[in-house]
Amino acid sequence: MELTAATGVECLAVVGLGLIGGSMARDARANGFARRILGVDRNPENARRALELGLVDVLLPLDDAVSQADLTIIAIPVDAAIRAVSEILDKVGDHQVVTDVCSTKLTLMEAIRRHPRRSRFVGGHPMAGTEFSGPEAARFGLFAGKVGIVCDESDSAPDAVAKVEALYRALGMRIERFDAARHDMHVAYVSHVSHVISYALALTVLEKEKDENQIFNLASGGFSSTARLAKSSADMWTPIFLNNRENVLAVIDTYLGKLGELRNAIEQNDEARLRALMAAANDIRRVLR
Amino acid sequence: MELTAATGVECLAVVGLGLIGGSMARDARANGFARRILGVDRNPENARRALELGLVDVLLPLDDAVSQADLTIIAIPVDAAIRAVSEILDKVGDHQVVTDVCSTKLTLMEAIRRHPRRSRFVGGHPMAGTEFSGPEAARFGLFAGKVGIVCDESDSAPDAVAKVEALYRALGMRIERFDAARHDMHVAYVSHVSHVISYALALTVLEKEKDENQIFNLASGGFSSTARLAKSSADMWTPIFLNNRENVLAVIDTYLGKLGELRNAIEQNDEARLRALMAAANDIRRVLR
Repeated sequence: MELTAATGVECLAVVGLGLIGGSMARDARANGFARRILGVDRNPENARRALELGLVDVLLPLDDAVSQADLTIIAIPVDAAIRAVSEILDKVGDHQVVTDVCSTKLTLMEAIRRHPRRSRFVGGHPMAGTEFSGPEAARFGLFAGKVGIVCDESDSAPDAVAKVEALYRALGMRIERFDAARHDMHVAYVSHVSHVISYALALTVLEKEKDENQIFNLASGGFSSTARLAKSSADMWTPIFLNNRENVLAVIDTYLGKLGELRNAIEQNDEARLRALMAAANDIRRVLR
Repeated sequence: MELTAATGVECLAVVGLGLIGGSMARDARANGFARRILGVDRNPENARRALELGLVDVLLPLDDAVSQADLTIIAIPVDAAIRAVSEILDKVGDHQVVTDVCSTKLTLMEAIRRHPRRSRFVGGHPMAGTEFSGPEAARFGLFAGKVGIVCDESDSAPDAVAKVEALYRALGMRIERFDAARHDMHVAYVSHVSHVISYALALTVLEKEKDENQIFNLASGGFSSTARLAKSSADMWTPIFLNNRENVLAVIDTYLGKLGELRNAIEQNDEARLRALMAAANDIRRVLR
């Protein structure tokens, strides 16, 4: 997509130079969305690597970066984002915009509900990622063709929403608007619980490895694709599960019920029932090509 | 790898022209392992497509194909393989070899334990596949770089083992030898249970879709990689789970315990415990690159 100076920003601040923040910085620079990119990371090693990799132009303390930036992206784990967001909003004026990239939205929105600068904040969730983390994991084109969610847009100033949507379009994303509560419920189903069950699978096989140290010799492609999410950062995912606790628990409980049905059909040698459950699950072919 | 006529066979029969049988036929032809490939499939539509796609040279009834072939590959679901294997062995002489590709081995080996031609059979498990099925799913190079397992090789004649291992090498596989019981336990951990949990995930989200018909709009790459196995053929996987019932149930039960630990840490808002569990699961990075 063509970008004009009018849709981009002069100065972009990225708080948190990991997989998501770093990838956004890469693309924002590459496609000219931002002229100048300010980096903030409280981990000095990450900050240094991000600068070396050219993800950002300069490293600054949080306050300085936010004060200078037209648009600030908060790209840190959701618990840290909730702790930082009010203080960040305190620093911005009438023409500056703050957004985030967190995978749960309701608790973060609650944290700033009465903030005097609430309208300068736009809740965002670019639905892209990999199981890797840190500035080295930042990739060009990570967001291309993915969904970028803008949450509770009626609580944000229209110019602020427009700025964030321009960023998403510049990254090649298709924009969807959701309210925060509905967003959190949906992602519990189609993202968060996939991670929970992958962590549980990894723990299961790693425990067996203590007795059978060759257990991974026969690991298949099916195992890899199911267990790869268990490589995901515990620092990022712990607060996601806890901030989306009610939804995640509800989905885990439904999931335990379904797994129990499969288990019982196997235990009872009930071939017809087992086949029927799996044939019903095959309907996922309609969704996953 | 270089193939010579000496390592290959004049006539190969493939019983079951689906993903695995079809892919073996493709490669065996392409690399010159077999001069002539006889196809058997009781589904006339599959048989016709396999012939059209050039996977096999000719379609024959089971008995005719087995009688003519130097090597017969049984590539049908394990329940059907168990029903067919004795009858197939009845047809072979002292210089013919029969092998299979099934993902569970012990029940099949039991079925022929006392068969007078037992030594002409070699239990095999080429550890490769995709979530697709049928002759259209057959792919060149599916087995390259994968593990090919030969089970209970001491129950087979050395020349029969050598023939199957030559086939595996011709397909680019690395050969591992296992006893059937140990094989079945290992694959329960690193293959079968990945499929069970994927089917359960698909059922969970498909059920939610009845109320929330946009639920898949936000489906992420993480969901796709965890749920894709749920596309796998119910006809193939139902008998796998039932033939490996004890092992699969044991792993599901360990898995339910691990998932329960994660669930309880989330329910109790126990951040330290949750983080510790996920950090332990991260050790899977050692295995999955």
